[in-house]
Amino acid sequence: MRDAGRMYFEDLVPGRRFECPTWDVTADDIVRFAREFDPQPFHTDPEAAAGTLFNGLAASGWHTGAMMMGMATRSTLQPVNGHVGMGVERMRFLQPVRPGDTLRMEIEVLDARRSGSRPRFGVVRVRWRAWNQAGDAVAEAIPSMWVEARTAAARDEPA
Amino acid sequence: MRDAGRMYFEDLVPGRRFECPTWDVTADDIVRFAREFDPQPFHTDPEAAAGTLFNGLAASGWHTGAMMMGMATRSTLQPVNGHVGMGVERMRFLQPVRPGDTLRMEIEVLDARRSGSRPRFGVVRVRWRAWNQAGDAVAEAIPSMWVEARTAAARDEPA
Repeated sequence: MRDAGRMYFEDLVPGRRFECPTWDVTADDIVRFAREFDPQPFHTDPEAAAGTLFNGLAASGWHTGAMMMGMATRSTLQPVNGHVGMGVERMRFLQPVRPGDTLRMEIEVLDARRSGSRPRFGVVRVRWRAWNQAGDAVAEAIPSMWVEARTAAARDEPA
Repeated sequence: MRDAGRMYFEDLVPGRRFECPTWDVTADDIVRFAREFDPQPFHTDPEAAAGTLFNGLAASGWHTGAMMMGMATRSTLQPVNGHVGMGVERMRFLQPVRPGDTLRMEIEVLDARRSGSRPRFGVVRVRWRAWNQAGDAVAEAIPSMWVEARTAAARDEPA
């Protein structure tokens, strides 16, 4: 694991933003993911998908979430202990993700708090927002990460 | 799509529970998913994973979420228009999911409300809870689904 340039809890201050590489979505990827995890016609069969609520093939929401994780792990946000997720709040699917889409994503730190149980760690909440090439917001999520701190919390230091 | 036995909004009353088939987790599956969507040593490299917070290879949280979707789509919960997710609240990763685990999951309807914009649809919130073969809770999530109603909402019917 590269440590150079990696970030500690103290570096992840609210408001800080990070860039991600774009992600190209193919029909093959959509169908392959869905056959394994979400085998429904609007995700696996372009012809059948045309007659559904989605009006055509669309990525599973869990595939969209996984692609967002793929962009996050390759972003300029690089916690020293990696991206260690504790959970996700408010994942929202806003527009279908289609074959041929190119997604882009921004990450912003919402807040950061010291762990109550482990003084060398903290919990950092970030917002992921993803758009397609037309500028339509397609999804957002608020993951919480467990991030190592450079120094222990003050209350645990000798008085 | 099979329609026989499929469920409408009116069938999905709070407290109703559904059974899912179990899901076997392999090291190959964990590594394959992670290489594409979450390429971090604790998800892709059993040897390197031993020296991380995870103390060994563990599934990406997004992989766990995708496996839960896989169990949900194959469960006794079968909305007539399929599982159409609008979003997910409070996804929590409680214990690492390991190679060799067999996951089981329960689904319970938390609440259901009519759509404000489309009288023939409603929004149903369910809770997914997953355990491993040792009985440890590994993850939970609260997805919201868009479900077709058998009849339009009362306020849209002729007076």
